[in-house]
Amino acid sequence: MNYPLSLQSVIDELGRLPGVGPKSATRMALWLMRQDRHDIDRLAQSIVHMADTLTLCDVCFNVTDDAGSCRMCSDDRRDRSIICVVEDTPALGAVEATGAFHGQYHVLGGLLDPLSGVTLESLKIRELLQRVKSSDVKEVILCLSPTVEGDATALQLARLLDVPNLVVSQPAAGLPVGGDVEFADAVTLARAVEGRLTLNN
Amino acid sequence: MNYPLSLQSVIDELGRLPGVGPKSATRMALWLMRQDRHDIDRLAQSIVHMADTLTLCDVCFNVTDDAGSCRMCSDDRRDRSIICVVEDTPALGAVEATGAFHGQYHVLGGLLDPLSGVTLESLKIRELLQRVKSSDVKEVILCLSPTVEGDATALQLARLLDVPNLVVSQPAAGLPVGGDVEFADAVTLARAVEGRLTLNN
Repeated sequence: MNYPLSLQSVIDELGRLPGVGPKSATRMALWLMRQDRHDIDRLAQSIVHMADTLTLCDVCFNVTDDAGSCRMCSDDRRDRSIICVVEDTPALGAVEATGAFHGQYHVLGGLLDPLSGVTLESLKIRELLQRVKSSDVKEVILCLSPTVEGDATALQLARLLDVPNLVVSQPAAGLPVGGDVEFADAVTLARAVEGRLTLNN
Repeated sequence: MNYPLSLQSVIDELGRLPGVGPKSATRMALWLMRQDRHDIDRLAQSIVHMADTLTLCDVCFNVTDDAGSCRMCSDDRRDRSIICVVEDTPALGAVEATGAFHGQYHVLGGLLDPLSGVTLESLKIRELLQRVKSSDVKEVILCLSPTVEGDATALQLARLLDVPNLVVSQPAAGLPVGGDVEFADAVTLARAVEGRLTLNN
């Protein structure tokens, strides 16, 4: 099908977005075409504005609109002695949404995956080590997904974070709350049993 | 999670696209953030350019960059005596991709669906009737999806296209080529048997 040039270029551009194939890109473009000119301009402007404004925090490498360090890193009410290491901004959002963590964050920008070209140098690991060594950090929580890449990254980081008196921890792997033992996969259940908690002392 | 304002507004805008929820919008926005400024500008510009340029053909109501009638409607090599009625541009693209149709098209802009507010007046039906009556059209093929809405629209159109000597047809419903009789659903198989073809004369 030969779409008009202006439509085809929107389909091509939207089709480059992650998770968007040519069919969904076509659906989006035809939907956009039917919107108010005002709404279309707002979409385009928001994207350009983000490119102008959004940057990474100098300290934790989370996304921020502020120059220098982000609001969370500048917040004196947050505990500076504990750093939660996460893969990316959505993971940080998930931890923050629990309301259970009041320390600082460090965003790696990915997980080790040598086959896809993600090595130690592509992640913000050197920056994490400098940060831990140059300030009074007592604990680093490696809050990475319990996948092959996540576990490999956590192992490497635990090895590299060889700093006297520093606790390096990892969230417990085990049964999801509300889940059913019968339907838990074998690996998860094995990790849950290995990491069992004593209740009576 | 409080995302930076510039990121949140891109998430909100992308999240309005059909088939995009807040999670995919976040993934897209964070992906966009990592792209070259040049590529981001090209995406934004393509969308604005489409809003400036793309319009509907005066004759068939397909999308076009040309003012007035589209290239297909102006193409003298296409048979003007036969009109294929389709729901939208992707459906037109599917028919055109077969290479088996060389007539003109008419894009309804949807299917009758009174519960969602799509009535006869919201579709380009009056325009189809005018087009059929004012020119030398011999056949109208109602190439609409064999769904409740598609069948209802086809029935209504067949009733309205009450023009002397005009053939109103519909593509055959039946077994998809390469499909297996055993796995065909009952309705499809019933329509296939009803519409059976005689092979020996």
